Amino acid sequence: MLEDALVKIFGERIAVTGAGRTDAGVHATGQVISFRIPRDFPSERLAIALNASLADDVAVRDVTEVEEAFSARRSALERTYVYAIVNRGEPSPLAARYAWHVRRALDLDAMGAAAAALIGEHDFRSFCALPENGRTVRRLSEFALDRRGELVRLQVSADGFLHHMVRAMVGTLVECGQARRDPATLPAVLAAGDRRAAGITAPARGLYLAGVRYEEYHSLREPWIFRTT
Amino acid sequence: MLEDALVKIFGERIAVTGAGRTDAGVHATGQVISFRIPRDFPSERLAIALNASLADDVAVRDVTEVEEAFSARRSALERTYVYAIVNRGEPSPLAARYAWHVRRALDLDAMGAAAAALIGEHDFRSFCALPENGRTVRRLSEFALDRRGELVRLQVSADGFLHHMVRAMVGTLVECGQARRDPATLPAVLAAGDRRAAGITAPARGLYLAGVRYEEYHSLREPWIFRTT
Repeated sequence: MLEDALVKIFGERIAVTGAGRTDAGVHATGQVISFRIPRDFPSERLAIALNASLADDVAVRDVTEVEEAFSARRSALERTYVYAIVNRGEPSPLAARYAWHVRRALDLDAMGAAAAALIGEHDFRSFCALPENGRTVRRLSEFALDRRGELVRLQVSADGFLHHMVRAMVGTLVECGQARRDPATLPAVLAAGDRRAAGITAPARGLYLAGVRYEEYHSLREPWIFRTT
Repeated sequence: MLEDALVKIFGERIAVTGAGRTDAGVHATGQVISFRIPRDFPSERLAIALNASLADDVAVRDVTEVEEAFSARRSALERTYVYAIVNRGEPSPLAARYAWHVRRALDLDAMGAAAAALIGEHDFRSFCALPENGRTVRRLSEFALDRRGELVRLQVSADGFLHHMVRAMVGTLVECGQARRDPATLPAVLAAGDRRAAGITAPARGLYLAGVRYEEYHSLREPWIFRTT
């Protein structure tokens, strides 16, 4: 869709590179896209022109000129995903597409203990939905949880993520938060190197690509379900 | 849909009465529904049973037993609607179904002056989309506005509202906020008694039935786009 908008503006097809995965149903508040334009075009005017062409479900927040070698994907130092859970008895119709409804009360201490076991450099093959040919070692720098009324917020940052890795980690943490899994077993889950050792895959609708960090730029933006203004 | 869920539980069709209008695309966080059940059923269990049958786009928050004479519609003393506007250059994909996107910066002082002229008891025929056979006089007790970052929040309470009345008032206020209409003309708009004297009808997607006040109960609940927890 961004490609289509670029065709309208520049009259030719332009390849774009995205920083992080957003599967169907996943949201993004901090996605970064890089592309090379065939002729000069003022950055501010380009944002306006793109938003005029784009459908309602995607918007350009900022356009910035970067150096030749920059790639939204390869230049990224760290990605941050946020996951939203509505934790109450009845579902929330207004949040149905923007959070996972978990009925049973979650024990955030147990979830936090499980999250702590995932921080650092590990082989995350047990949290990878697809067979990976390449390297499955990633470095998790942060896995934070907190409760905001009926909403539970999870935030995880790493140098990169495997396929469905955040959703598999969230599903596993929720099992710990419902006493269906012991947080002390997480090192063994990692060591198994087998997707069946970890928990369920949390649904896409609660997941947000919230930010991407580069040498000189950080796109981090709080999903509005959690925003206080 | 609530009727269908009641049929599943009680095995017969039960008439329900809603407190306030929610046209297509309009949301509700404080709707109140009354109905008479054919046999005893514990209130807490009824809420759970209804939510188990209802589709994702509606949820029951509370069930309370009331006296025979109570009607969600006729016993209501006051309704409160909240309206959400995203006021920034680019649209908000995540809020597309939950707020009106108004690009040009809104002057809240001008909008507040217009709102003040509507408070009190007036004939609101100029803000009514359909020919009304009955009484078109309503008493507005409150019309509050504030800005929360990129969000503008309007809250209006009255003993009752005519068809599309809130949306016509919001559209008129936005015209004042963009200097396309002088707030000082609002008394003349009321006096005209003609829908064409007022402004545009704001879209349904920004509107929330936020609460209904009764003698001994108030269902007021902040739409989550504005919630701080």
